[in-house]
Amino acid sequence: MAAAEETSKSSEAFPMKGGDGPNSYTKNSIYQRGAVDVAKQLLDKEIAEKLDIEISLPSNTFNIADLGCSVGPNTFSSVENILEAVQLKYQCQGLDSQIPEFQVFFNDHILNDFNMLFKSLPPNRQYYAAGVPGSFYGRIFPNNSIHLVHSSSSNHWLSRVPKEVVDKNCPAWNKGEIHYSNSTNEVVKAYEAQYAEDMECFLHARSREVVSGGLMVLIIPGRPNGTPHSKTLPNMMLQLLGTSLMEMARKGVVLEEKVDSFNIPMYYMSPQELEAAVEGNGCFSIEKIENLPSALADGASIETRVLGYHMRAAADALIKQQFGEEILDELFDLYCKKLEEKPSIFESGKGINFLAVLKRKPN
Amino acid sequence: MAAAEETSKSSEAFPMKGGDGPNSYTKNSIYQRGAVDVAKQLLDKEIAEKLDIEISLPSNTFNIADLGCSVGPNTFSSVENILEAVQLKYQCQGLDSQIPEFQVFFNDHILNDFNMLFKSLPPNRQYYAAGVPGSFYGRIFPNNSIHLVHSSSSNHWLSRVPKEVVDKNCPAWNKGEIHYSNSTNEVVKAYEAQYAEDMECFLHARSREVVSGGLMVLIIPGRPNGTPHSKTLPNMMLQLLGTSLMEMARKGVVLEEKVDSFNIPMYYMSPQELEAAVEGNGCFSIEKIENLPSALADGASIETRVLGYHMRAAADALIKQQFGEEILDELFDLYCKKLEEKPSIFESGKGINFLAVLKRKPN
Repeated sequence: MAAAEETSKSSEAFPMKGGDGPNSYTKNSIYQRGAVDVAKQLLDKEIAEKLDIEISLPSNTFNIADLGCSVGPNTFSSVENILEAVQLKYQCQGLDSQIPEFQVFFNDHILNDFNMLFKSLPPNRQYYAAGVPGSFYGRIFPNNSIHLVHSSSSNHWLSRVPKEVVDKNCPAWNKGEIHYSNSTNEVVKAYEAQYAEDMECFLHARSREVVSGGLMVLIIPGRPNGTPHSKTLPNMMLQLLGTSLMEMARKGVVLEEKVDSFNIPMYYMSPQELEAAVEGNGCFSIEKIENLPSALADGASIETRVLGYHMRAAADALIKQQFGEEILDELFDLYCKKLEEKPSIFESGKGINFLAVLKRKPN
Repeated sequence: MAAAEETSKSSEAFPMKGGDGPNSYTKNSIYQRGAVDVAKQLLDKEIAEKLDIEISLPSNTFNIADLGCSVGPNTFSSVENILEAVQLKYQCQGLDSQIPEFQVFFNDHILNDFNMLFKSLPPNRQYYAAGVPGSFYGRIFPNNSIHLVHSSSSNHWLSRVPKEVVDKNCPAWNKGEIHYSNSTNEVVKAYEAQYAEDMECFLHARSREVVSGGLMVLIIPGRPNGTPHSKTLPNMMLQLLGTSLMEMARKGVVLEEKVDSFNIPMYYMSPQELEAAVEGNGCFSIEKIENLPSALADGASIETRVLGYHMRAAADALIKQQFGEEILDELFDLYCKKLEEKPSIFESGKGINFLAVLKRKPN
């Protein structure tokens, strides 16, 4: 049995803020939602062109997994989009009567608020719903059991903070920073290595779980090919968060050592990096990699403060764990102020969401 | 798609008390655990004799569903027992190398504490785990997707309180009582009809979900054939709970109308009643129906107060919803006192746990 071995692969949990309060992920995931919406048309086209509907035979159940689903509601829109696209494919081929049943596996870390997710399930859904707790960097499903994997705004989370960057005795110690974009080469290399290892684990696990001909649709927040880490917008935003924390350390609100030992386990890959990982794995063909139109294109319409809240919803649990809940309001007030003072980063910084469609090669 | 239609079947949720506090189900399910333990040997034998191992082909995944799993830990022992019995069957046939992967679906009402369940999952489990929220009186899985259904101490929960018994204008209005064992014939008939309808729905849903040759193993708290409802031990215990509530109504602690409109949706079926339902459904053969040795056999060793706590863990949410949390301590103190004053009910009242093994006939 591989299950015990492969699911025990150690990785840390970074749940989004649960519940539905003003700082919750539910109320602060419009940006992520934007990525889902702009992907819909592309997704319809990809499913229409690339999906072999025979893969749901002989059971005639079509199994969809949404990895890193958080607590909704974005996951429900994504699943609904996919389901409609698959149904449409059957209808266009005149196979209405053979439309399969759908089972949807909502996956996220074990500390995700599944209670909230389940309570928010759309009452008129056309699928059987299941929650699957566990890190998607390990095995979470049986062999050959999933027909379509979807994951949106999740693959930029690493499985853990690279060990070296929090080790005082290591040249990659990331003193005074909470991310890698303004750090030494050693720190950057440690993050890059962690990403490479994680993506290898991700693709290996999925290569076992996805049926031959099955699709993987990933929406990934990343950086354009050729853009250095230091010019990547989300990295620049994280660096400002680090600056805010260091400022609070200087004021004595938080301990500097706590900032030194705190790192955000996010990595913004380029499409080229993903391509290299997929080729290294060898089990998937790349059907498409395409930048999505930016949800931020209409720049003025998303206020920097809103982006600040998004960051808070995403990083809330991590920061609380390290520094305590009491610093959150002050930190994010300061952070939003810094964002507003530096509108230039939204011009000089480059960030993309890109869609990757991978197809499981025959075994 | 049947999913939307069948899962939307209205039914109410009666979650066990979540968390792991002193009154939680986790800490107060020893009685239910006893039923699981005494069933183990019987279960091993049944699986060895009755399971066709070919049913897990061609996917070579064996899907187990535990219905009404609550929050653990009993569900984990049950699943472990089943998994070992299935593995043993393969080994005894010299098919060690063909042992399938296991996926376990933990099902309970949508208000069950799945977060707690997921956090308690055994770290070295040999299966992929998923949580499935929803009433097992409706469809919760795709067609032909489950190889073995297990359910312990769950089928005595009805999907709802029969409507008539809370309707003042109905001859079946159950004034002054919270259950049916001391009530008019009309009330008893309303409960019997609800049971019959629910069991029909249960068997119909499972007949679609369980593969041909798949097994259903049910451990059901019930009454011996021929025993009237009024002489059934759990009914007598529930009646005492009703008496306690009425006493509090007389003292003015709770409103009498609230007691009148409160009914416990539990029904203790006899093996004969189950047989009739299975025959009526027609899709399952009865492989075995057998009384389990009583977990209460060593009568003196389980104190009445412990039984009182068990009742509290099970009925906590229902009572809180109707009367408010503040009455719980007083109510269960009074109830335990009444149980201690009436040791005779443990002699005159009859209660059984019985094991039913059903096999899905070929389509």
